[in-house]
Amino acid sequence: MSTNTQVKSYAALSPTAPLAPYRINRRELRADDVSIEILYCGVCHSDLHNARNDWGRAEYPLVPGHEIIGKVLSVGRGVTRFKAGDHVGVGCMVDSCQHCKPCQQGHEQYCENLATYTYGGTDRHDGSRTMGGYSERIVVSDKFVLKLPDGLDLAGAAPLLCAGITTWSPLRHWKVREGSRVAVVGLGGLGHMGIKLAKGLGAHVTLFTRSPGKEEDARRLGADRIVLSTDAAQMQAAHGEFDLIIDTVPYIHDVNPYVPTLAINGTLVLVGYLGGLEPVLNSVPLIMGRKAVAGSLIGGVAETQEMLDFCGAHGITSDVEVIRMQDINAAYERLLKSDVKYRFVIDMASLREGR
Amino acid sequence: MSTNTQVKSYAALSPTAPLAPYRINRRELRADDVSIEILYCGVCHSDLHNARNDWGRAEYPLVPGHEIIGKVLSVGRGVTRFKAGDHVGVGCMVDSCQHCKPCQQGHEQYCENLATYTYGGTDRHDGSRTMGGYSERIVVSDKFVLKLPDGLDLAGAAPLLCAGITTWSPLRHWKVREGSRVAVVGLGGLGHMGIKLAKGLGAHVTLFTRSPGKEEDARRLGADRIVLSTDAAQMQAAHGEFDLIIDTVPYIHDVNPYVPTLAINGTLVLVGYLGGLEPVLNSVPLIMGRKAVAGSLIGGVAETQEMLDFCGAHGITSDVEVIRMQDINAAYERLLKSDVKYRFVIDMASLREGR
Repeated sequence: MSTNTQVKSYAALSPTAPLAPYRINRRELRADDVSIEILYCGVCHSDLHNARNDWGRAEYPLVPGHEIIGKVLSVGRGVTRFKAGDHVGVGCMVDSCQHCKPCQQGHEQYCENLATYTYGGTDRHDGSRTMGGYSERIVVSDKFVLKLPDGLDLAGAAPLLCAGITTWSPLRHWKVREGSRVAVVGLGGLGHMGIKLAKGLGAHVTLFTRSPGKEEDARRLGADRIVLSTDAAQMQAAHGEFDLIIDTVPYIHDVNPYVPTLAINGTLVLVGYLGGLEPVLNSVPLIMGRKAVAGSLIGGVAETQEMLDFCGAHGITSDVEVIRMQDINAAYERLLKSDVKYRFVIDMASLREGR
Repeated sequence: MSTNTQVKSYAALSPTAPLAPYRINRRELRADDVSIEILYCGVCHSDLHNARNDWGRAEYPLVPGHEIIGKVLSVGRGVTRFKAGDHVGVGCMVDSCQHCKPCQQGHEQYCENLATYTYGGTDRHDGSRTMGGYSERIVVSDKFVLKLPDGLDLAGAAPLLCAGITTWSPLRHWKVREGSRVAVVGLGGLGHMGIKLAKGLGAHVTLFTRSPGKEEDARRLGADRIVLSTDAAQMQAAHGEFDLIIDTVPYIHDVNPYVPTLAINGTLVLVGYLGGLEPVLNSVPLIMGRKAVAGSLIGGVAETQEMLDFCGAHGITSDVEVIRMQDINAAYERLLKSDVKYRFVIDMASLREGR
């Protein structure tokens, strides 16, 4: 007898349909499973891309959401790390092969056999399609459930699970510390977390932006310096400055102007844009200063826990605008206009209570 | 009274004229100078580019040559590290500002005030144009003179000063060691040194080549594996393999096929090609495996000495074809057809004796 549970969710049923109420099954608990009541779910730009099949990989119905904060309802018989009532998080992944070299090294996001994404993925045990956090509940293997430190605002913590770890992972991999010189390109969901986390690590933080109006906000978030990327003199003045540039821009853009602002041995890491680098990347400034252009994808489970613990210790959360589940389609429209400071987070009580 | 010395050399007098005998002055010794009788000088592809003004920066007369092996004739009054009779080397640089951060860190090649190149540069003291190693003698500040370890073949050691250090520096920067998995793209002057040095460091070494005929030579030089880059099945079989790829190809080429052969956290470093990366570099495989595309330029003075000492300890030299100074123009024509295994080196006795 199956003890699957039907729960309320919001799903896209086609690339063009607005998200709408939809009932999905959550599986009965396996030995290593944690059943979670979802309290808040962040709205990542990739939710919109996937709902509308911008990347051509969507299958419907599709329940987006991978910035999940919730409370444990119950656990499988093999689970010892969590108990009912614990506040927990779930990010972009809910499983991986666990035996390839990247998995063994804690880089599940680079699993050679492909990590199972929180939505739109295929469960490794029963072949079912995974459904994300725009939902009342979720059931996730304990290995991919994060402990939420006490004292963090629950809504503000949700975006840490994607926007937070996506900027934290390169900060840690490229060894940013007290006195490092870090720049962030773009002030959105990822960019504002990049500023807060780099500042938390003790770096001198610069924001590259095209919008003069963002200076006040950037300084409030922790930026020490703002460079208008449209101003040639300001760009020239930043020549040779940065140990690490985190480029969060999610659409095609010219990275060449940023490379000369790297210090010797510096790296520009792309975390937002998937595609060809146009105009073509010039190798000359790379060679003339041992500079690199790299990419980075979210982060591993242990690294995500480290980031959450760091945020707990430093009181870091995302700046969020809390919305009702019923307002998701309007939020998507505002997201397309970058009209959010800096992340929408859905209060899932609205879904449960049907308000 | 000037004690400048006129010495024989070979110079290009215009972009189209063949190199021809020419007399140049070598300065009287400053306190820190070393006067060197040049015994051998390697022929780097950039000599040809500069002689023919392919990069638009040439001034004439131009005396090429920056892979110099010689014997100390005399030293300035402040020089204690060298004495007459010592075997020494001079590479691509003869000076730098010495006070910027890269210089302080031993990265003179990335000097913020620009290193003084061995030829075609401007002397920082008297403003004269530097003239390179296709010459009987050269006078160089002791800080840029390298000690040649005993026991190395003098002709074979010459290319270490450019081809050697250009591949050594990235091997060391990216921490190649016993068991590292290194690939080299292209089997020319740089590529054959990359294979020897990576092998000397204990790495498992792969050569990427378009030419099936290079396999036997590559194995003799130390390659453990040859991957035909024109064979899709071989490229697929190399997926996720390499910690470091040293791309020595000096002309425009598509680097995208090599990126997926990098392991997680791997780097492809360009050392040969200066220009735009076409076809456009795709960010997806960079992001999906935290991979990087970087550049690297020759190496610093201390690093060059380290490389020479390593070569002395491991008996590593370049595979060379020794030519007479008078045959340089024919050698350039063969260089254009990649018809050399793997570096031409000029025996400078031919210039002195006019043979």
